[in-house]
Amino acid sequence: MSQIQFTFGLWTVGWPARDPFGDATRPDLDPIESVHKLAELGAAGVSFHDDDVIPFGSSAAERERHIERLRKALAETGMFVSHATTNLFTHPVFKEGGLTANDRSVRRFALRKVIRNVDLAASLGARTYVLWGGREGAESDAAKDIRAALDRYKEGMDLLTSYVIEQGYDIRFAIEPKPNEPRGDILLPTLGHALAFINDLEHPERVGVNPETGHEQMAGLNFTHGIAQALWHGKLFHIDLNGQRGIKYDQDLIFGHGDLLNAFSLVDLLEFGGPDGSPAWDGPRHFDYKPARTEDVEGVWASAAANMKTYTLLRDRAAAFRADPQVQEALANARVNELNTPTLGAGETVADLMASDADFDPDAAGARGANFVQLTQLMVEHVLGAR
Amino acid sequence: MSQIQFTFGLWTVGWPARDPFGDATRPDLDPIESVHKLAELGAAGVSFHDDDVIPFGSSAAERERHIERLRKALAETGMFVSHATTNLFTHPVFKEGGLTANDRSVRRFALRKVIRNVDLAASLGARTYVLWGGREGAESDAAKDIRAALDRYKEGMDLLTSYVIEQGYDIRFAIEPKPNEPRGDILLPTLGHALAFINDLEHPERVGVNPETGHEQMAGLNFTHGIAQALWHGKLFHIDLNGQRGIKYDQDLIFGHGDLLNAFSLVDLLEFGGPDGSPAWDGPRHFDYKPARTEDVEGVWASAAANMKTYTLLRDRAAAFRADPQVQEALANARVNELNTPTLGAGETVADLMASDADFDPDAAGARGANFVQLTQLMVEHVLGAR
Amino acid sequence: MSQIQFTFGLWTVGWPARDPFGDATRPDLDPIESVHKLAELGAAGVSFHDDDVIPFGSSAAERERHIERLRKALAETGMFVSHATTNLFTHPVFKEGGLTANDRSVRRFALRKVIRNVDLAASLGARTYVLWGGREGAESDAAKDIRAALDRYKEGMDLLTSYVIEQGYDIRFAIEPKPNEPRGDILLPTLGHALAFINDLEHPERVGVNPETGHEQMAGLNFTHGIAQALWHGKLFHIDLNGQRGIKYDQDLIFGHGDLLNAFSLVDLLEFGGPDGSPAWDGPRHFDYKPARTEDVEGVWASAAANMKTYTLLRDRAAAFRADPQVQEALANARVNELNTPTLGAGETVADLMASDADFDPDAAGARGANFVQLTQLMVEHVLGAR
Amino acid sequence: MSQIQFTFGLWTVGWPARDPFGDATRPDLDPIESVHKLAELGAAGVSFHDDDVIPFGSSAAERERHIERLRKALAETGMFVSHATTNLFTHPVFKEGGLTANDRSVRRFALRKVIRNVDLAASLGARTYVLWGGREGAESDAAKDIRAALDRYKEGMDLLTSYVIEQGYDIRFAIEPKPNEPRGDILLPTLGHALAFINDLEHPERVGVNPETGHEQMAGLNFTHGIAQALWHGKLFHIDLNGQRGIKYDQDLIFGHGDLLNAFSLVDLLEFGGPDGSPAWDGPRHFDYKPARTEDVEGVWASAAANMKTYTLLRDRAAAFRADPQVQEALANARVNELNTPTLGAGETVADLMASDADFDPDAAGARGANFVQLTQLMVEHVLGAR
Repeated sequence: MSQIQFTFGLWTVGWPARDPFGDATRPDLDPIESVHKLAELGAAGVSFHDDDVIPFGSSAAERERHIERLRKALAETGMFVSHATTNLFTHPVFKEGGLTANDRSVRRFALRKVIRNVDLAASLGARTYVLWGGREGAESDAAKDIRAALDRYKEGMDLLTSYVIEQGYDIRFAIEPKPNEPRGDILLPTLGHALAFINDLEHPERVGVNPETGHEQMAGLNFTHGIAQALWHGKLFHIDLNGQRGIKYDQDLIFGHGDLLNAFSLVDLLEFGGPDGSPAWDGPRHFDYKPARTEDVEGVWASAAANMKTYTLLRDRAAAFRADPQVQEALANARVNELNTPTLGAGETVADLMASDADFDPDAAGARGANFVQLTQLMVEHVLGAR
Repeated sequence: MSQIQFTFGLWTVGWPARDPFGDATRPDLDPIESVHKLAELGAAGVSFHDDDVIPFGSSAAERERHIERLRKALAETGMFVSHATTNLFTHPVFKEGGLTANDRSVRRFALRKVIRNVDLAASLGARTYVLWGGREGAESDAAKDIRAALDRYKEGMDLLTSYVIEQGYDIRFAIEPKPNEPRGDILLPTLGHALAFINDLEHPERVGVNPETGHEQMAGLNFTHGIAQALWHGKLFHIDLNGQRGIKYDQDLIFGHGDLLNAFSLVDLLEFGGPDGSPAWDGPRHFDYKPARTEDVEGVWASAAANMKTYTLLRDRAAAFRADPQVQEALANARVNELNTPTLGAGETVADLMASDADFDPDAAGARGANFVQLTQLMVEHVLGAR
Repeated sequence: MSQIQFTFGLWTVGWPARDPFGDATRPDLDPIESVHKLAELGAAGVSFHDDDVIPFGSSAAERERHIERLRKALAETGMFVSHATTNLFTHPVFKEGGLTANDRSVRRFALRKVIRNVDLAASLGARTYVLWGGREGAESDAAKDIRAALDRYKEGMDLLTSYVIEQGYDIRFAIEPKPNEPRGDILLPTLGHALAFINDLEHPERVGVNPETGHEQMAGLNFTHGIAQALWHGKLFHIDLNGQRGIKYDQDLIFGHGDLLNAFSLVDLLEFGGPDGSPAWDGPRHFDYKPARTEDVEGVWASAAANMKTYTLLRDRAAAFRADPQVQEALANARVNELNTPTLGAGETVADLMASDADFDPDAAGARGANFVQLTQLMVEHVLGAR
Repeated sequence: MSQIQFTFGLWTVGWPARDPFGDATRPDLDPIESVHKLAELGAAGVSFHDDDVIPFGSSAAERERHIERLRKALAETGMFVSHATTNLFTHPVFKEGGLTANDRSVRRFALRKVIRNVDLAASLGARTYVLWGGREGAESDAAKDIRAALDRYKEGMDLLTSYVIEQGYDIRFAIEPKPNEPRGDILLPTLGHALAFINDLEHPERVGVNPETGHEQMAGLNFTHGIAQALWHGKLFHIDLNGQRGIKYDQDLIFGHGDLLNAFSLVDLLEFGGPDGSPAWDGPRHFDYKPARTEDVEGVWASAAANMKTYTLLRDRAAAFRADPQVQEALANARVNELNTPTLGAGETVADLMASDADFDPDAAGARGANFVQLTQLMVEHVLGAR
């Protein structure tokens, strides 16, 4: 199996571990040092918010200096830019939204901030630009006109896609959905809502999704199912891997340290879900997690390594699962592949279909077992490394 | 204000109150009597699954007799058919899915069952045909190929839409999403996922959604936000109103007996969210709930009446909310309508936008209050009938 | 009806609105000014963490000065101290726990910090001392020995109760449970777990609970049920009122701005649930909420007033509900008070009970309706101010 | 390692797979045949509801015949009775509660049903009697007086404990908590609430808890933490093992087929959490799960075997985890055992404690990493069988 391309957000290892109830427990990391350290650990690339590398409010000169340092670090390490994105959530100006703030002047500021960073992203060779609309939402049903908000979201996205087309940038946008936190209810709360929204944009071909494990699981949804649907639509433009233990605040755990069985099925899908067992996703395996607030800097790097290690172990387990003859037999008994056979025969008409009714005995069909339990147990045993 | 058109599923009042841990507590109701009783209570129409009026396995003659009785009851009461739908979940044959069962013969049977009932629906004048895929899903990530399942779902939907077009039926389909129960994870788990799916169908114009209050709330999602997004896409084809108290099993409570504030904002949207305060939704206000298992038949009818009463009271509260000058002032202070103003000026270019940056002080803008608390409190007080 | 005694945490209005994704949007408030402002708004008292009034790391002289200012403000306003509590969560030293940190030196520091503030609380006349163990927990099942943690929790509580007894302080402790956030899983996650724990302490009579609306609702639990159980055990020592919209991050909304029906039943219980309709709880009605991050200081005070207004409106609705003859009839039909009749007769033996079996027809009893729907609808209509 | 004693509820394999939306997919199994089959699969015992072996409404003669068959099967197989319990939920008479129904005649009937089956349980040598109060609760806050319900619950429990003492039965009761389903909110919703309740009973020493994996996880709670607390109180009287995938309806999956990491930590606690690594729990490992509705009878037995296989594999993983020198080093670095050291020294006074403040530097302590990430990753790798 080929080398897996792992990438990390610079804000992940760089998180100083301030949380809603506590002050930072770690010093700020120099993002440039993080690039080097991640390269040493075996990562292939990094992603960043504008403010991760260029502090908010930097002068033009400072900005250039920060960019130059990043450019140099990338060159020295051979790391590529997995994606770039905009911080539209930390500064108080975005407290009520960015692209969909009620205050029009804020929306304009947000757009300018995105465009400026899209230019930078293009100049750094990023081919994916992520938008996480964490502040686009509301706590009060009375305070936000949702349809107007979607209009403005669309206006913003249409402007951005037109802009990159005009500029000739080889950039696609990826919307990152989240159901809530920091807003009570966030717009486009799941990847489904985002996929639906994209279809009504001016340049839908330029926009896809960047689903995050924990965000979908915060809505109680099956992440593997969601990724499969995004792939089905041809809209998986990027992916954020991490861990979450059920419906609660956004935990951003290490990949696999949450729902391990679902992490297995996800890796199986990404690595072997393509035609003839090839990868179903050829982009970077990107981690968007937070090193636990309890840890020091050494723990930060241990956690970065743990993400890659766990993913790789699950890839090995998935390979063995697929190669196991008993699994193949169990898949056949469970008729898993039969679902790829069209329901109607070639050229079959509705009349033909209706005429076939006499041949079918629903009671007999209902009595047949689906044979899922044997298959599922084999999966669990492979995850446990017990076969 | 005009009379509101309320409709009910025949399976709602007809539910004999069997639950996962208990036997039926009520006798089966004759659906024909339910039509009459609902008409007396003031409902304008009913909806039904095929098996609600024609027991599974009926002979052709029995089938005709059941249909005739329904037709007669509709004629006598003046009730219309809000929607028809197919029971693809009760019989054991559907235990592993209907349109997306791994077993192809089951998928074929499911399609025939739908087509047969679509013919009936058309003959009864129904203009909406609902598909709730409660069994389309899985408990085990290994046992279902999600992309193949979406292929088959699409195949089925494409067949159905082509069929109604060929037959000249004035029927649109509405997919009803649900995240889980009775399957561990259901395909198209939220209205967002369903809206996305619809865009890849052959005749997307014939397919929309039928969101249910409790189903979206089972994923922790804001139902009013979801309905607003469905309206924004022009895809609200039907609606199922009920109540739910948070993320747990599907409760199917009386409308308003769950999240009352969200029920208020929903009614406000449906009744006054259109241009100039007209209704945003002109279809029936359809209840899909279950009379509590603790109740006898008298309680069943009391619960049907309670749905309509609560909805009407919330409509009155919403009308008063909108008419209150203090609310209008609070809306202005919260800049709610400013979100309808495009972010860019007419003819404004990206260059123009970028040039306007100097005029904006993010710190000053971030210090301004959004004035949401006063508006929200006014909403709560209107819900409480206190203004 | 008498005046309701409302109290507020100084950290509530004083929250500068820093959240996990954003910087503070409001300036720090001087807690002394907050005391005056809350008094003006009609509050009767305040509560505080040590660090709310005496910044962490203050010298002894600074400490005295801060205490003196508070003492003066309380005297000038006539406000009393609803409770005092310790901040064992903000400083990095507590990142892995306070009384149950793995690091013994941290546990010792935490205990000293509590004791020092208990002395202050006693000197200010506080009769309740709250312990919220927000950092007592873990993200990883391997990293915390739960039974050892409970041993240390007990050791700490036993020390504290012995101390106040020895000192002659008229102080009782109240544990505030929370299921998660900021830790992945917090010890004593619900009021039930806390009540169980208290029974194994050395001085259980000195320890009760301080349940918070949103904390119980974050576990999907019915807050009114929980408060009723706490009252049943005689262990409701304090209460934290706020709002929460379902299972998600801790929202700390204004009271009533979450689950409005549950807020109604809670107010009904607190105000009229005692003998002959007297209050079931005679302590302060204490708000522990966060003014939304979108608001400026004016919004902060509007939100404080909104808590009291909503509570008062719900009290009025509950009084009307109880006084309504139709409600009384519905309560009788629903046999609500029959539950107060012991199941066995006076002096009845098991043999007598067993002998009565012949008189009972389970099928007939099972066919009787419970008549809950009419009662519940009356409740909803009273909440809506529609009766 | 010794043989693990596995037991199963007869209702588990015997579940005919009727669910809220579907009819039974499997025939009823003869419970006597299930006893034999489970014995063949390696189980050591069974548990049962009265109605599992003696159909509701059986005559005295039928009853004796059913009991005789069971007695014979137990004798032939050498299986023991893990626990007995009462079905207070299936028949419509219990639709509004059993021991806490508003209707007093229902409460009396429920008590008689329990007592009759306690006599049987004693005669069969059962030493644990479980009470799952699935119907003790409400959907409407107005319809149930919670404190009266707790009074009646206590009255019932006091009667039962007095009865078994008088009869000289060697039986202890175990309350099985559940937060909701089939009632909207169930009394004693978590093991914490049940433990608290037990303390106010007349014979608390005779009553403990029977926690179920999925029930606690339906409230988002950490099952291992809960079991640890129950053990800490000396109140784990029985345990129900199964799987659940997050906060949703009660799934009753195979053990380990839900949250696999939490299943690991649970097995580690049960098998090796006692003194010197002995088992922390010496009772049966009891499975209360439902074979998936998709399966036929062959799948039923495969699923029973899968529970035992998964548990055993996790036991092996836990043994290897504990034996790994790197794990021991990581545990030391994470100071996990330091939590067993009392916070105060032997004979240390509060004054001594306070005097030690000068020696402590909170900033330095806060800067130390907790070293949890390395330990947690080792745990994950052991679960994956990768070490």
